[in-house]
Amino acid sequence: MVDEAFKELYQELTNSHLIHWLDTLPKQLSDWSKDCAASHPSTPKHRWYKSITHLPVIQSELIELKDKFKVQSTEKLTIGEKQGAIHQLKQLMPWRKGPFDIHDIFIDTEWRSDFKWDRVKNHITSLEGRWVLDVGCGSGYHLWRMLGEGAKAVIGIDPTELFLCQFLAIKKLINQKLPAYYVPLGIENLPALEGFDTVFSMGVLYHRRSPLDHLLDLKNQLKPGGELVLETLVIEGDESQVLVPVDRYAMMSNVYFFPSIKAITLWLSKMGYVNIRVVDVNKTSFEEQRKTEWMQNESLSDFLDNQNPSLTKEGYPAPLRAVFIANKP
Amino acid sequence: MVDEAFKELYQELTNSHLIHWLDTLPKQLSDWSKDCAASHPSTPKHRWYKSITHLPVIQSELIELKDKFKVQSTEKLTIGEKQGAIHQLKQLMPWRKGPFDIHDIFIDTEWRSDFKWDRVKNHITSLEGRWVLDVGCGSGYHLWRMLGEGAKAVIGIDPTELFLCQFLAIKKLINQKLPAYYVPLGIENLPALEGFDTVFSMGVLYHRRSPLDHLLDLKNQLKPGGELVLETLVIEGDESQVLVPVDRYAMMSNVYFFPSIKAITLWLSKMGYVNIRVVDVNKTSFEEQRKTEWMQNESLSDFLDNQNPSLTKEGYPAPLRAVFIANKP
Amino acid sequence: MVDEAFKELYQELTNSHLIHWLDTLPKQLSDWSKDCAASHPSTPKHRWYKSITHLPVIQSELIELKDKFKVQSTEKLTIGEKQGAIHQLKQLMPWRKGPFDIHDIFIDTEWRSDFKWDRVKNHITSLEGRWVLDVGCGSGYHLWRMLGEGAKAVIGIDPTELFLCQFLAIKKLINQKLPAYYVPLGIENLPALEGFDTVFSMGVLYHRRSPLDHLLDLKNQLKPGGELVLETLVIEGDESQVLVPVDRYAMMSNVYFFPSIKAITLWLSKMGYVNIRVVDVNKTSFEEQRKTEWMQNESLSDFLDNQNPSLTKEGYPAPLRAVFIANKP
Amino acid sequence: MVDEAFKELYQELTNSHLIHWLDTLPKQLSDWSKDCAASHPSTPKHRWYKSITHLPVIQSELIELKDKFKVQSTEKLTIGEKQGAIHQLKQLMPWRKGPFDIHDIFIDTEWRSDFKWDRVKNHITSLEGRWVLDVGCGSGYHLWRMLGEGAKAVIGIDPTELFLCQFLAIKKLINQKLPAYYVPLGIENLPALEGFDTVFSMGVLYHRRSPLDHLLDLKNQLKPGGELVLETLVIEGDESQVLVPVDRYAMMSNVYFFPSIKAITLWLSKMGYVNIRVVDVNKTSFEEQRKTEWMQNESLSDFLDNQNPSLTKEGYPAPLRAVFIANKP
Repeated sequence: MVDEAFKELYQELTNSHLIHWLDTLPKQLSDWSKDCAASHPSTPKHRWYKSITHLPVIQSELIELKDKFKVQSTEKLTIGEKQGAIHQLKQLMPWRKGPFDIHDIFIDTEWRSDFKWDRVKNHITSLEGRWVLDVGCGSGYHLWRMLGEGAKAVIGIDPTELFLCQFLAIKKLINQKLPAYYVPLGIENLPALEGFDTVFSMGVLYHRRSPLDHLLDLKNQLKPGGELVLETLVIEGDESQVLVPVDRYAMMSNVYFFPSIKAITLWLSKMGYVNIRVVDVNKTSFEEQRKTEWMQNESLSDFLDNQNPSLTKEGYPAPLRAVFIANKP
Repeated sequence: MVDEAFKELYQELTNSHLIHWLDTLPKQLSDWSKDCAASHPSTPKHRWYKSITHLPVIQSELIELKDKFKVQSTEKLTIGEKQGAIHQLKQLMPWRKGPFDIHDIFIDTEWRSDFKWDRVKNHITSLEGRWVLDVGCGSGYHLWRMLGEGAKAVIGIDPTELFLCQFLAIKKLINQKLPAYYVPLGIENLPALEGFDTVFSMGVLYHRRSPLDHLLDLKNQLKPGGELVLETLVIEGDESQVLVPVDRYAMMSNVYFFPSIKAITLWLSKMGYVNIRVVDVNKTSFEEQRKTEWMQNESLSDFLDNQNPSLTKEGYPAPLRAVFIANKP
Repeated sequence: MVDEAFKELYQELTNSHLIHWLDTLPKQLSDWSKDCAASHPSTPKHRWYKSITHLPVIQSELIELKDKFKVQSTEKLTIGEKQGAIHQLKQLMPWRKGPFDIHDIFIDTEWRSDFKWDRVKNHITSLEGRWVLDVGCGSGYHLWRMLGEGAKAVIGIDPTELFLCQFLAIKKLINQKLPAYYVPLGIENLPALEGFDTVFSMGVLYHRRSPLDHLLDLKNQLKPGGELVLETLVIEGDESQVLVPVDRYAMMSNVYFFPSIKAITLWLSKMGYVNIRVVDVNKTSFEEQRKTEWMQNESLSDFLDNQNPSLTKEGYPAPLRAVFIANKP
Repeated sequence: MVDEAFKELYQELTNSHLIHWLDTLPKQLSDWSKDCAASHPSTPKHRWYKSITHLPVIQSELIELKDKFKVQSTEKLTIGEKQGAIHQLKQLMPWRKGPFDIHDIFIDTEWRSDFKWDRVKNHITSLEGRWVLDVGCGSGYHLWRMLGEGAKAVIGIDPTELFLCQFLAIKKLINQKLPAYYVPLGIENLPALEGFDTVFSMGVLYHRRSPLDHLLDLKNQLKPGGELVLETLVIEGDESQVLVPVDRYAMMSNVYFFPSIKAITLWLSKMGYVNIRVVDVNKTSFEEQRKTEWMQNESLSDFLDNQNPSLTKEGYPAPLRAVFIANKP
């Protein structure tokens, strides 16, 4: 089914200004598929794809994406069918980005990503009719919400195969041809498409060994005049304040740079962005990020210092997230 | 307009079993386009593309492809428009494969390719619903006739850019979305697609330095069970008779192997074909190949010995063409 | 030890006009080595390399290469050592090209390659001071004889790993730094070096699916004015006589074109060689090719028709070999 | 002459543990040479190479490299020859790293790189018998001084072609086969050689858009246990202090990160180095960096604030350089 999903993307691209992406994408995804197929059937991912196969095919009657993610059908699932679907969806745990309310199943994800969306959506240029790229899209939750805002086509990229499977599971349950696509690659594997009206990078920058290159990579995906929406973890301080954890931060590994808001503003400017502004700063709450039935690993409350929740377990400042908007000239 | 033509091909491929061709084709054609664009505006080919641009856009009312190539519209061209169109089409001379009867313009080509088609078409498996590849398709004349026989999609390949332009000119004058496509590459640049029901190679084999590799390349484009239609120049003799001209043959350069019918039959067998048969042997006549208003260079009568028309100018046997049909197992 | 052998070749190249071969060769041989190393230890080739390791290291006192291949030392091997060495060398059977008389061990190979050398060497330009390439060199027998004729450096290429091992075994037993090298690649993997004074291709042409490309490949290795020595199987007949066996010839598979002498002469001319002449034609005798203690598989007498030794088992004419000499202009 | 220089390097590599560098280096340098040759003869670099050609070939009698760079011959240059040599060497201006005292010509460079060497050399592990890589080597001054400390072979890399020419000019005037080599590539173009005992990176880190990747690249060139010598511009402050100039710093463009000493120490640790220590911190003086007859552009005094020399023209802290030593585990 992943090949079918790629095929739909190629059809979309063939009929668009992004047709030149076909110069590289099918070869990359075909290599990606071969690597997947080459992996042993005993690996978890075989179970993932099987779970998607076992999900029921239902006619969606109501698809709400603008104010929340809610999908319903008039023809209800039987209790047994619903239990079966829940069982399959749980094979795809942990579910991080959501929540999804679909055919009376409520996938209560670790993150209330709708909170973040509510903080972001009023500050950005309306997505109506725009081509959108979401870098590090996870389960793809925001892709659907972007469609809800009228985007013409939304493409999420994220190399994590579990998230691809979560996306495909949701797409199958929606069971309608909607212009949301998932490409299981990292942004560093994309050519400079210079073709998106809006590019989102949320929760990615601190995972990059080279944040300046990440900012350039994002700019290379934007059309001239296009809009970047950047969300990342920040620290307090002036423009020369940049925290680099020796090891982990809030128990996350592969973390590198946590600059101050002023430092990021300066970096965006240095990388050639204009019209840079901070539109939201938010301390992550226990309501927004927490352990649930669908994500049973440790979550925010476990990452913070028991005695002093303004610090992480490692003694760094607790997560503070800022949203930046900037334009490519 | 060539990019537009490629785009239509990608759309066809995206919706077909040949979608994997996208792994290589867009990159190759994009490189090809860059090389073209890099060539100096003073080269002839710039004139070619301009001529196509200047051709009128007319509504075709009647498209006859089965018994001949004839295209008409109810709304006739004015005399001035017709003269203009003829002028533009003559920029694309020499016209070799045809003839094309289009909007009351009769492109009288060097070859009566319809004669060849009449000799071939009754012997082959019906093209109804089939995917067809025509290797060395020239102006693409036979592509249209293959559509006339009901082919589902026909793709011609030929690296000669003038022939691409002739094809695009005809396609523009037809002005209807028909599943005939032209790829300006040689067969050695294609991956082993193993996806065509019928593959034609007419007038190509003697131009190949390695005829056995050519037979293998053709097999690699066929589906299992698919049909090869091979037409080439042959000489008389038993299975060890193979003429290799030191230099030219009938004034053609880049010619290599002219085997006997028995030799080709053996070669096809050696390369793994089955069900091999010769269905036509024909000595090219002055009616079939001759100088015309649309091809004013030398033609067959100039290639043969004045004293003895059974010999070429170089003293080799005059052209004798045989058609072979064979299957991939 | 194969890496050590490659290293000696690189040293030779670094100090020569062929230094540009380093642009491609080390990468190819390094990939080749990785592929080898990746093969399972239970494969025969692991035994081969072990056998070479177990061969004794002796000081060679007398190295005769001009009139025959004979290597001796004053300090003789004990009977036990000699038996051990014979045992290891027999792990490398079948030995086809030779014979080698080395430290009182007589490797009696299937072919008396010295017979062929005696027929060839008087016709060629003296190898004194020349760089020589031997395409399809087998065990490398002729490489040593070429050194005996005064060649400055000789490089054999042959993709068959057993032959590489035979070469390394002989080189180890000689135990002197002599400018003979073995590259386990096919000629189609070499760049156009245009750097050899003499190129040999003996017993290769009929194994090529494209003999004309082989002739071009050989030309691409020659310096301007360089000399090609081509030996191949021929048939009787005029210049359009070319035998192509449907399947095997004298029980060899992978055989393609057996042209007449006149046909090859024409082909050489067509491919741009000048000064083409046939210097020897020889019907292979049972003395020259036969089963021995060191090659216990079937040999010539088994390949021919019992009733009529002028025919092969398949009914083709018995092997007739011709030697051609030609120059690159 | 640059090809001759590369050839000497290949000879050195062929006889060393770094022979695997031949898998990539000759191809890269051959491509590099082609790009050079393709550039128009009217470009400055053609003049550079011509200048080197015109330098005299003299027998060096005394080569002092340990305490300073001084090369002399008993047979002195005439006044005319000396004036000629000076003229040619001045074609290679600006000379930044030095000074070179050679055949009574004193190339007084912008930098007294000997000052830096004096600050560094006592802190590092003795170079005796070691393979050394100098990343961003400039004119190669330190390469010669490293030989003076007994290094077995020293290789400088720097993509700036003028510096290559300065190196070749000095090498020609020395006129002795010494194991110092120059590779005109950036470190990002090298494979992970893991073969150097000591790697220097002096004055490079602040020019890298991704300093962490630079630290990894350096580690990939070191043998296990090997020593990194890192010199870069630093600022005052704790481990989260990192200055990123929006535009220029001390009039240098292409500058990115100026971390505090503590920040760099942390970064080195994060990138996997051990045994990290700062061995020197130095405020650049007007004696160490200044305009000379051989570098007539602006220098340090022009880069600093006239009123307050503790600040750069842009208002940042004046240059403070620190030397770090660390080991690969």
